[in-house]
Amino acid sequence: MTSLAMHESVALAHVEFRTTPETYRHWRLEVDGEIATLAMDVDERGGLVPGYELKLNSYDLGVDIELYDAVQRLRFEHPEVRTVIVTSAKDKTFCAGANIRMLAASAHSWKVNFCKFTNETRNGMEDASAHSGQVYLAALNGTASGGGYELALACDHIMLIDDRSSAVSLPELPLLGVLPGTGGLTRIVDKRHVRRDRADYFSTKSEGLVGKKAADWNLVDETVPRAKWADAVQQRAADLAGRSSRPVGATGIEFTPLTKTRDADAVGYRYVTAALDRGSGTVDITIRGPESDAPADVGGVHDQGADFWTLAMTRELDDLILDLRTNETELGTWLFRTAGDVDRVLAYDVLLLDNADDWLVNEILLYLKRTLKRLDVTSRSLIALIEPGSCFAGSLFEIALAADRSFQLFGVFEEIDPDATPAVVIVGGMNAGPLPMGNGLTRLATRFYGDDDALTAAIGRIGDRLEADDAEGLGLVTFAPDDIDWADELRIAIEERASFSPDALTGLEANYRFAGPETIETKIFGRLSAWQNWIFYRPNASGPDGALRKFGTGQRADFDRKRV
Amino acid sequence: MTSLAMHESVALAHVEFRTTPETYRHWRLEVDGEIATLAMDVDERGGLVPGYELKLNSYDLGVDIELYDAVQRLRFEHPEVRTVIVTSAKDKTFCAGANIRMLAASAHSWKVNFCKFTNETRNGMEDASAHSGQVYLAALNGTASGGGYELALACDHIMLIDDRSSAVSLPELPLLGVLPGTGGLTRIVDKRHVRRDRADYFSTKSEGLVGKKAADWNLVDETVPRAKWADAVQQRAADLAGRSSRPVGATGIEFTPLTKTRDADAVGYRYVTAALDRGSGTVDITIRGPESDAPADVGGVHDQGADFWTLAMTRELDDLILDLRTNETELGTWLFRTAGDVDRVLAYDVLLLDNADDWLVNEILLYLKRTLKRLDVTSRSLIALIEPGSCFAGSLFEIALAADRSFQLFGVFEEIDPDATPAVVIVGGMNAGPLPMGNGLTRLATRFYGDDDALTAAIGRIGDRLEADDAEGLGLVTFAPDDIDWADELRIAIEERASFSPDALTGLEANYRFAGPETIETKIFGRLSAWQNWIFYRPNASGPDGALRKFGTGQRADFDRKRV
Repeated sequence: MTSLAMHESVALAHVEFRTTPETYRHWRLEVDGEIATLAMDVDERGGLVPGYELKLNSYDLGVDIELYDAVQRLRFEHPEVRTVIVTSAKDKTFCAGANIRMLAASAHSWKVNFCKFTNETRNGMEDASAHSGQVYLAALNGTASGGGYELALACDHIMLIDDRSSAVSLPELPLLGVLPGTGGLTRIVDKRHVRRDRADYFSTKSEGLVGKKAADWNLVDETVPRAKWADAVQQRAADLAGRSSRPVGATGIEFTPLTKTRDADAVGYRYVTAALDRGSGTVDITIRGPESDAPADVGGVHDQGADFWTLAMTRELDDLILDLRTNETELGTWLFRTAGDVDRVLAYDVLLLDNADDWLVNEILLYLKRTLKRLDVTSRSLIALIEPGSCFAGSLFEIALAADRSFQLFGVFEEIDPDATPAVVIVGGMNAGPLPMGNGLTRLATRFYGDDDALTAAIGRIGDRLEADDAEGLGLVTFAPDDIDWADELRIAIEERASFSPDALTGLEANYRFAGPETIETKIFGRLSAWQNWIFYRPNASGPDGALRKFGTGQRADFDRKRV
Repeated sequence: MTSLAMHESVALAHVEFRTTPETYRHWRLEVDGEIATLAMDVDERGGLVPGYELKLNSYDLGVDIELYDAVQRLRFEHPEVRTVIVTSAKDKTFCAGANIRMLAASAHSWKVNFCKFTNETRNGMEDASAHSGQVYLAALNGTASGGGYELALACDHIMLIDDRSSAVSLPELPLLGVLPGTGGLTRIVDKRHVRRDRADYFSTKSEGLVGKKAADWNLVDETVPRAKWADAVQQRAADLAGRSSRPVGATGIEFTPLTKTRDADAVGYRYVTAALDRGSGTVDITIRGPESDAPADVGGVHDQGADFWTLAMTRELDDLILDLRTNETELGTWLFRTAGDVDRVLAYDVLLLDNADDWLVNEILLYLKRTLKRLDVTSRSLIALIEPGSCFAGSLFEIALAADRSFQLFGVFEEIDPDATPAVVIVGGMNAGPLPMGNGLTRLATRFYGDDDALTAAIGRIGDRLEADDAEGLGLVTFAPDDIDWADELRIAIEERASFSPDALTGLEANYRFAGPETIETKIFGRLSAWQNWIFYRPNASGPDGALRKFGTGQRADFDRKRV
């Protein structure tokens, strides 16, 4: 595929996910009391990489990085905001979706990673509507097509201006030969309950539907004539705000800039560090526990703000995952270690769990949940290494539970420190509910899916310091080699992983990580994304005569008509 | 991909799915009272197409066509059989899975279609264990690797000979760079509840696991030393038979040869006909209702046997779906019509529903259910055309509910027959329970997923003759054009469909057809198969240096190490 060659420059460009509202090029964020307005105003010449213009409020990864930042800040910095209006600053156009020329010119891995991040951001908006009392309202003041309409679908309520021309549409299939892959297909039928035959019709009609019919089919919640538009949007925003559980009179915390060092071999933050080993294709990640005791009460969490350990660590881990996923595609195995005091980690956990009704604590828990979910859908092999001095307890034990395999040292490293305390893992309250996976179950419940006795036994040991034999016996870790076998077992596991097909590993992990029930989220990342990946890769979409490449040329795509 | 060229001959060879035990080349079917033994004994030189040898009981589509025939006949011809032992007639080898050289040389569409059929056959075995009282017992008298172990996973109970060398394994990922895509990944964690980290380890260990460890990890249910093997298998089979709900003293019906005419333009059976239009890329399928009234009682069903309308029609439809899917990949849209008397169709339905506890009636209902499920996972656009003279009632109305879109004529064709009775659809008992989709819901419940009022309204009209406006109002059909618009609307729908990317249509339909909950079955056809399709298509598997092509050459695959 020639697109691979065309896009070599993009794959090599380093992408940073850190930004601030002051530097946004594509969004205007305005907060007015309990209502915030997030207006899309894409700078055509502000593409993340050269080679395309972001016309008609179309987006690329750079636009979405700003959206993600805004959604995060609204949650932490603006407890007063109860409704977020997502609209457009451009006349007659809400958003035209992902930029086609960017997609056509992008390498397959870039497209897939881009879609994953946009999906995560939209899921995060739904998470805010559902769990933060910060409800997203899509105010479509112009046509919302493709990814633009999918952005609206992630909002809790959709208003469409009724001017006989502004439409909602999913033209991916008829115009581009791909799917509405940012949750569109799933949300239409599973969230908005549009009948499947209507959904089929709608998704093959490139111009989409306007006005009353769009509302009749439940593609939007309401339509409003232009003359009444501004008032109606404000009124609806106020109505939604009135139903919010957001606190009164609270003060936000500032998302201070993340301190980060980054070079070709390492990424460093305050609590999280990563060493990049290009030879073995691995990243050595270490997460350090709190440096001091937990604050005495919830007031201390507010006082510390972005410096509070759990939040600081989560932000760092979140940024690291995004950085490595985007910039280091050839480092296929991530090795997770922790270092610190298990009791301190648990004390921070208890402080959060005891104050879960505090708005900031709620946000911290939800953010940790989302970050762990990001790990679950990361297409890298994840291995947890539980050694003396580690602190895999409660919230940090989730990392081991998220891993594809875990190794806990039985005993100690005799040559390094014969007097060390053997490594333990500790199940905590954090493992028993507040941090569910996308499938709606905790990682423990997913691990023991279909084996209730094992789950009960693990939960029954909450708070116990579980050395390797105990943890292995309970099924909480995969293997418990001793000092003699440790290095060899690890080396073999890592070398093997590096020798396997990266594609097959991605598919294997995407299946095994999600036993049990499915939700809209898992359907988007499993079923929908897997189909989209396949379709993106087929010549009918991305080949020289494929629909993505022919779009806008005036020529029709030349399809291989075989049904597969 | 050069494999496309290499495989042109296969794509052009015509495949028939009709066979009989007398002509099996690869299986031995022996029935001994309540226990049947299905012994795999693959003829190395009996490949369906030239170019590979079926060594070590490896299989291709031809082997699986025989298996499917055997499973079907056991259900209908052998009501006395309560346990089916699936074993191997070869020493030390149970089954090595799908033949690698066949996979390596096959076109992508062939591989995907082959996997779909093998999945359906294995699901059918599970259906027999769960609903027919005909329980499948895998007796692994030698190594079961890859698809061989996946065949065992579809059985209700797995015995493994304990001879220190016979193993179960899933070597697809380490050896071939693809997934265990015939349900393996899903059944390991979701059916057998193997812990995900163990599943990960097992699926990367090409030699698999033997004996006690395989049992400890629940990869098999029991292991038995060679000396006790034969007795233990018979004893276990007898135990399982003792728990069966199969009838005593019943006589089977004969699956008489299907009468079929087939040429380049048409397929014809007694009740089902299909006209192939290569110009428009469509197939016109007509299903005719019963020619005579339903028998007075269930005795008549037994007397008529394979001639009983519902069974005869289902067998024909089943064969047609398999024929078209395999042999006519460029005919992307199937148009379904029915012709006959709605009351007669409903009378046959009522006879079946009233006698659902009869073993033969139960088998007919289950077979109709499986055939409709086959339609649900068929990668063709399905359109139902409801015209005067049609009989879309009850069981046949399921065809319209399975379609991506349905059109019901409002009024009559004035120029053809102004005095005709307008077309009706009739919801029947068959639409309200006995024919669930793979997601566990009826097609009606899936259609109205999240809209209980609409479902209740539709069920409330059971038995009513619903003309076009009624049916459209209830949401039971997509569109109800009149005589004036009918031809144009249809032409546009069909031409549009033919103009779209076949790949994107496949993905769209696979998502929209399955709103709501997921089951092991939908996870296999959605999540797992979609990932497998993608992986199969990637150069890391199927490219000239990919793992599938390098297997057995002594050379290592050369992987693009980028994680996608």
